[in-house]
Parts: sequence; structure tokens; C-alpha cells
Amino acid sequence: MTAPTTTQMRREIERIPAVVAELLAGDPAPMEELAAAVRRSRPTWAMIVARGTSDHAAVYGQYLLEAYAGLPTALASPSVTTVYGAPIGWHGGLLVAISQSGQSPDVVSVTAAARSGGAITVAITNVPDSPLGAAARHVIACEAGAELAVPATKTYTAQLAVLARLVASLAPESELPDALPAVAPALRSALSQSDGWLERSVDGGALVDAMAAADRALIASRGFNLATALEIALKLKETSGLFAEAYSTADLMHGPLVLANPDVPLLFVRPDGRMGEAVDLAVEAARARAVEPWIVGGPELPAGARTLRLEDGLPDALTPLVYALPGQLLAERVARARGMDPDAPRGLAKVTETL
Amino acid sequence: MTAPTTTQMRREIERIPAVVAELLAGDPAPMEELAAAVRRSRPTWAMIVARGTSDHAAVYGQYLLEAYAGLPTALASPSVTTVYGAPIGWHGGLLVAISQSGQSPDVVSVTAAARSGGAITVAITNVPDSPLGAAARHVIACEAGAELAVPATKTYTAQLAVLARLVASLAPESELPDALPAVAPALRSALSQSDGWLERSVDGGALVDAMAAADRALIASRGFNLATALEIALKLKETSGLFAEAYSTADLMHGPLVLANPDVPLLFVRPDGRMGEAVDLAVEAARARAVEPWIVGGPELPAGARTLRLEDGLPDALTPLVYALPGQLLAERVARARGMDPDAPRGLAKVTETL
Repeated sequence: MTAPTTTQMRREIERIPAVVAELLAGDPAPMEELAAAVRRSRPTWAMIVARGTSDHAAVYGQYLLEAYAGLPTALASPSVTTVYGAPIGWHGGLLVAISQSGQSPDVVSVTAAARSGGAITVAITNVPDSPLGAAARHVIACEAGAELAVPATKTYTAQLAVLARLVASLAPESELPDALPAVAPALRSALSQSDGWLERSVDGGALVDAMAAADRALIASRGFNLATALEIALKLKETSGLFAEAYSTADLMHGPLVLANPDVPLLFVRPDGRMGEAVDLAVEAARARAVEPWIVGGPELPAGARTLRLEDGLPDALTPLVYALPGQLLAERVARARGMDPDAPRGLAKVTETL
Repeated sequence: MTAPTTTQMRREIERIPAVVAELLAGDPAPMEELAAAVRRSRPTWAMIVARGTSDHAAVYGQYLLEAYAGLPTALASPSVTTVYGAPIGWHGGLLVAISQSGQSPDVVSVTAAARSGGAITVAITNVPDSPLGAAARHVIACEAGAELAVPATKTYTAQLAVLARLVASLAPESELPDALPAVAPALRSALSQSDGWLERSVDGGALVDAMAAADRALIASRGFNLATALEIALKLKETSGLFAEAYSTADLMHGPLVLANPDVPLLFVRPDGRMGEAVDLAVEAARARAVEPWIVGGPELPAGARTLRLEDGLPDALTPLVYALPGQLLAERVARARGMDPDAPRGLAKVTETL
């Protein structure tokens, strides 16, 4: 099999800066109205329902809603509603549903149950004219354009951008509104820096080569970028069949760090600031096991052969919009290096139906 | 290195039926009082905070509280409190903290923040006289005895038993109170059946041999037993360095099933009933990829060379107390088969301190 030299997946990744720029520069009125409606309903908690890649956007949304809106936020277990039929007390809640296609039946079912139970419901989807769009009271379109690649990339980042914009509207006094315009330039910069990092030759080969030769990998971060670690790991699985597992660095140190060894590439996502210091504990623990990790991070990251230092200038909370991109590009390139077609991954379909 | 022929870990697993029997037969008054206090505080949502193995008990608790108490239940991201210092709106919430040692500083911090913010706080710990015991308003002792093995086994099941008892007290009209006495006999039966299943020779070797020869594995279930899949995968990682990853069968079918192949042992945990039918979709999808899985399940499970049919007679919600045991025993035996000492896993400590 000949590996394609460019792919739909890569072209979609290259469109991410433009998609995000357009989303963040869009008319603010509908988002302000939605934020006002959410505030009027006075939720005391939130729940996010999603599947697959969208579930990683949900993890990001959970941190955002807790850290900036003060809402304790659950990630839905759809089966509680769809299989167990539990009588959740929805009243007083904010239910956010995230689905690229708007088709996942279990996401639709939970949304419908929450709405009829009295929660305020918001759907974030690329396809507003979908069952999910019909089930939710409020719908936000991701406007990412049709996703042509099977492994979702730009729709993931578009979902993050919509969540960031929504929470910025819910927390207008926070640092988020002023910081949002810096995201698109940071994405353009990340796109231009990523290939060099992926190809940079270091002891034992470049990152792409190391991942292509491995059958296992560990991806770790903490806080907002736990979503990034999950997303990178899933993309490596989907496109390359690599057993890449994502961890919170805190959980990694509670046990699974025993899996780290020089044959298992280890990639950290390290935002600047206090969370970066928390990630550093795991970096040091890995080095104590003679494992030298790769690290994606911000301006505070010390230069190193294996580090990608992105000059993002963003608060931690917005870095996931930028840090996923090098990882998605990594997955695309590892697949090609392994002679696989990232546009036609084995066994992956755009819409998966589960009970 | 000579593998030990019996281990502390095995002896602790063998004690699980007695520990659970004692816990479930204990004086009901303190639990009834706690349930009354929780009801008086009228929580509209719950959050569970835990780390490591206890985090899997938290996943179980999430399903229990949602399905039987109707409380939307979040799993805490401790860093939201400990690193980001977010002002969570704790009032009206039920915070459950789970920690074997009661020492994890981030679990203690979240509990203290929740209590001072007005949530009703409950600690479930094996060491009531601990920082966590001091931080929470209410403390339930697991009474599992000192955990002598480094990878937690009996304390995990004890945590599940305490959660089941608590939620049974919160939902006295449910099926839970009447079903609890059947757990200990089911555990004794599972213990007596497990070795035969683990050693049973089938095409390509017994399960222990297949896992010992593999460097990757997939463990999947759905609903309450997602906790079981997570627990089995973590134990395989901790004791044997096996890259075992746990999935909800729904999420597995959204992508990672591409990782399944005959070299990657696949283990399903399949409760009876509707959730079992949901798991069957993933079993069929695996077979369509020419991967024949191992399955742990209940009386409805068709007999097969790779199946462990446990005559549990329990509602789905209580099966996690029983189904983890064969998996823990699997991890102990795989470690020994690989010449490793499950009592001294590389890099694992009883208490891990994270920011």
C-alpha cells in the first residue's frame, strides 16, 4: 500500500486556524442571548453529554464550567437514562450536549430527558438540523464546515471554541473574553511550528519515527489539557492503531507510570503556570525512570530537543484550543509513516449508533 | 527472579468475601442515620472525589447515585480546587470522598472546600483517623482491615460495598436492600470458580497465558461495571506492566475497537439484563473483526470456552462487587506468570502525593 503524500485529514487540520478565527469573530449577539437565558434559569449544576471525540470536548467543558462559572459539572453516563431509565432530578441543571453529527441516539435521548425534566438544554453541533438540534431548547452551530476526514479534527477544536465562547459570555468579568482573540494567531503559529518539531531528529529518532515504531504510548497532562491528552491519544488509536493511553499526570503517578519505559513514547502537554508545575512533577518522575518525554507547552517550557514551545500567550484555560493541533498532526503523520491511510482508518465510521 | 507461589495480594483477594460479608452484616444504625442526614440536607446534585483505585469506586458511586438516588453526579477534578482555586457553588451538593488511606492531599483539599462551602460531606476511608476523616463532616469506615498488598484489592470491594449500603439506605424502596445479602455468597462462589476459568485451556492457551504473553489488552463493559473494567485494567497495569485499557463498550465502538486483534486479549464484563444486551453489540463487533473475547458475566451468559458464568442472582447494580474479583486474581496470576512480584510492583507506592 502506498501512503498518500497529503491527506484529507491534514487539509482539515490546516483549516483549523481559519475555522476558529471565524467562529470567534462571529456575531456575539446569539451567544450573549444564550448566556442570558442560562443565567435566568439559575442552574446550580451542569451536565455534559457526548461520545467519542466530542467526549474530550466535554472534559474541557467540565473544567471551564467549574473553574469559570462555579458550576459543579458532571459528564453524563448516557446508559443511566437510556438503559437504566433512572429518574434523574433534572430541575435546576444546565445540560450541554456535544455531537459533531447531532445523530448519536444516546446523546439525543439524554438531551430530551433533561429538557422534559426541566433542565435548560444547549446543543453544540456541526449540524443544527439534526435530531440533537431538535431535542435541545438552544442550539449553537459549530460552523466548522463539513468534516471530510473520518477522524474528527477541526470539529473538535470548533467545539472547544464554542465552549470557550459560551463560558466567556457566562463569565464576562473573567480573563476569557479579552484572551479569545489571541487564539487564532496562536493556532497559526502552532501549525507552522509543528512539522519541524515532529521531524526533529533526536537520540533514537524524531517523534514521528518513535511513535511509528512503537505499539504503545502514554500521553499525559492535567487540568484543562487533560482533554488534549485524551484527544491526542484517541487520534493515535484511530488513525494508527497505536495503543496510546491518556492520563491526568496525577493519576499517572498513582500507578500507570510503571508502564513508562524507553520503548513507550511519553508525551506531556504542559501549560504554563501552576498547572505546568504540577505536570513537572510527572516529568521528573518519568526522568527518574530513565524515560525522556516529549513535551508540548507554552513560553515557560525550557528549550530542549524534544520540546515544542508554543508562543501562545494564552491563559491555561484556552491553551487546549492550540495544543491539540500538533497532536492531531502527529497522528496523521504516524499513520502515514506506518503505511496506513488516515482518511480510511480501519473500522471507524462517522456516526456510531449505540444503545 | 523466582516468582512467589503465593502472594500477599492473593491472600487479600481471598479475604474479600469475608470482609464484604462483615461490612454488609454490620449494625445498620449508623448508615441509616447518615442517610437521614443526607436526606435532610436535600442535595440536588452530588460529586465524588477520589484518586487511583478509589476513582473506580467513584465511577461505581456515580452510577449508583444517579440511578437510585436521582442525583446528577460529577466526578471531581481536584485541580479545579487545588490548582485553579475555582469558586465552586457547593451549596446544595453532596460531596463523597473516597480514599483508602485518607491521605491524598488533593482529595482532602476538595473535601474541606466543599464542607466550608456548604455541601454535606461524607468520607469513605479505611482509616477514619486520617486527614480525610478530619476534613469530612461524616465518616464511614470501610473496616477492611489493613491492606497489606500494594495493589489495592479488598479495599476496592469494601469501598463498593459501603457505597452500595449507603445508596440502599438512601433508596429503601429500591431492590438494593433486599439484594445486599446475596453479595457475599456470590463472592465466595466467584472465588471458587475463578482459578478454573483463568487456567482453562482454549485455542491459543488459557486466559492467564494469553495475558502473560501480550503487551496490550482491552477490558470493556458498560454501566455499573465500567468500574469493574477500569479496576481490572488498572490492576493488570500495576502488577504486570500490561498496557490494559478499559472502555465503555459504547465508547469502544466509537473508535478504539480498531485496536482489537488476535494478539490483543479482549475481556468483556457482561451483566445480565438490558445492559448485557448493550455489551453484546460490542461482543458481536469484536467477533466481526475475528477477535474472540473472554467474558465474565451472569447466569444469562451462554456457556463457552472463554466465558466465566457466575451464578450471582444479583441486580446489575450489585454485580461490580463480584465481577472485579476474577479480574484481580487474573492480575495477580499474570504478574507471577511474567516472573514479577505482585506484592512489589515497580514504582507503586501506597500513598501518592500530588498537587
